[in-house]
Amino acid sequence: MITLFHNTMSAGSRTVRLLLTEYEIDVTFQEEQVWERREEFLQMNPAATLPVLVDSGNVIVGAHTICEYLDETRGALKREKRVYPEEPLGRAEMRRLVDWALMKFENEVTRYIVHERVTKRQMPSSVGGGAPDSQALRAARANIKYHLKYFGWLAQTRDWMAGDRMTNADLAVASSLSLLDYLGEIDWSEDAELKDWYARMKSRPAFRPLLADRLRGMPPVSHYVDLDF
Amino acid sequence: MITLFHNTMSAGSRTVRLLLTEYEIDVTFQEEQVWERREEFLQMNPAATLPVLVDSGNVIVGAHTICEYLDETRGALKREKRVYPEEPLGRAEMRRLVDWALMKFENEVTRYIVHERVTKRQMPSSVGGGAPDSQALRAARANIKYHLKYFGWLAQTRDWMAGDRMTNADLAVASSLSLLDYLGEIDWSEDAELKDWYARMKSRPAFRPLLADRLRGMPPVSHYVDLDF
Repeated sequence: MITLFHNTMSAGSRTVRLLLTEYEIDVTFQEEQVWERREEFLQMNPAATLPVLVDSGNVIVGAHTICEYLDETRGALKREKRVYPEEPLGRAEMRRLVDWALMKFENEVTRYIVHERVTKRQMPSSVGGGAPDSQALRAARANIKYHLKYFGWLAQTRDWMAGDRMTNADLAVASSLSLLDYLGEIDWSEDAELKDWYARMKSRPAFRPLLADRLRGMPPVSHYVDLDF
Repeated sequence: MITLFHNTMSAGSRTVRLLLTEYEIDVTFQEEQVWERREEFLQMNPAATLPVLVDSGNVIVGAHTICEYLDETRGALKREKRVYPEEPLGRAEMRRLVDWALMKFENEVTRYIVHERVTKRQMPSSVGGGAPDSQALRAARANIKYHLKYFGWLAQTRDWMAGDRMTNADLAVASSLSLLDYLGEIDWSEDAELKDWYARMKSRPAFRPLLADRLRGMPPVSHYVDLDF
């Protein structure tokens, strides 16, 4: 019995959702708004971060920790469906790019755009909700270009983000980009190879639940669900 | 032939230095100032972050990725000296706390204090150097208490941070605290169990090189090197 506490607009949560589906693991989902600081949630994870996975009562915290755990306990048996490379150097390259998506890109772009455009609309003003800060949005949008250029360079020089096979790095980068794409923040015309790579990710069956995500009162841009965008 | 690109005041770099010594791995050190944006360094790591490890020409980027790599290639043979637990749940708990130290604590405390008190003194004003921002320092110092309380609770309820054996989580938390201790930012009288745990970490032979670190024109507080502080 596995439960994932997640949020639709958390890139780390999306990465774990993709991995769970790729590994065909049955799971119950519970959406969490961390700003509510729900007591039972804080007892599981005093860091008040998402995602959190509960496996038979055991609490596993954080996207990369959960991914490592799922790979160690389930992925290692998946043979050609495994999204963790077998070799230490391959895993190191994958982990570098998972960190890039879920830490660097998150800290310089995703976190700000989601906070300003989505979370602040959901939160009451007593805990910091309100109108987006246009200066923070402008800074994050300026940073997007630099990151897309790097992901685009990877897409041009490799079949997949970390090399010649799809790995967890593809799941993490696609998760981050899918959030921003929902909000119409990505100009796909800038980079044909990156667009082609994202189209391949988007057409995977594991991606369907992400494309079905909807925020109340905030529909996605029209091309968000199109496989041919 | 292994080279570590690191910085004295980077908690992730200190964690890797401790792990290299615990695993008795020979290494050449090269101190890097990332704000210099040295061309050869950016070619190795376009994210411009530390630490970076080069093993026989292979570039491994980021503290937790390097630790995983060192454990996979060297640690697995270390038997009782291994600092990675053998079981997936033990590893998950260790990784949660490594993330806490090197991501959460880093983003809420360490990064600001090191940037304001150390890095800005070293950087020319053209790239952001100058006097510390007292507001940023005040915010970071307010956050320290909450993190020390949590680390203290772990020290009270467990022999080591992640359970009954020393793991990489102890190396990561001790690395972060040692930086702040150098700068006199930690009041050890607040928590006897945390102080006792840190004294145990500090007395390990692997800790000696960290205690010998010196910043130019900025000596550590007097108790920084004392094993009986």
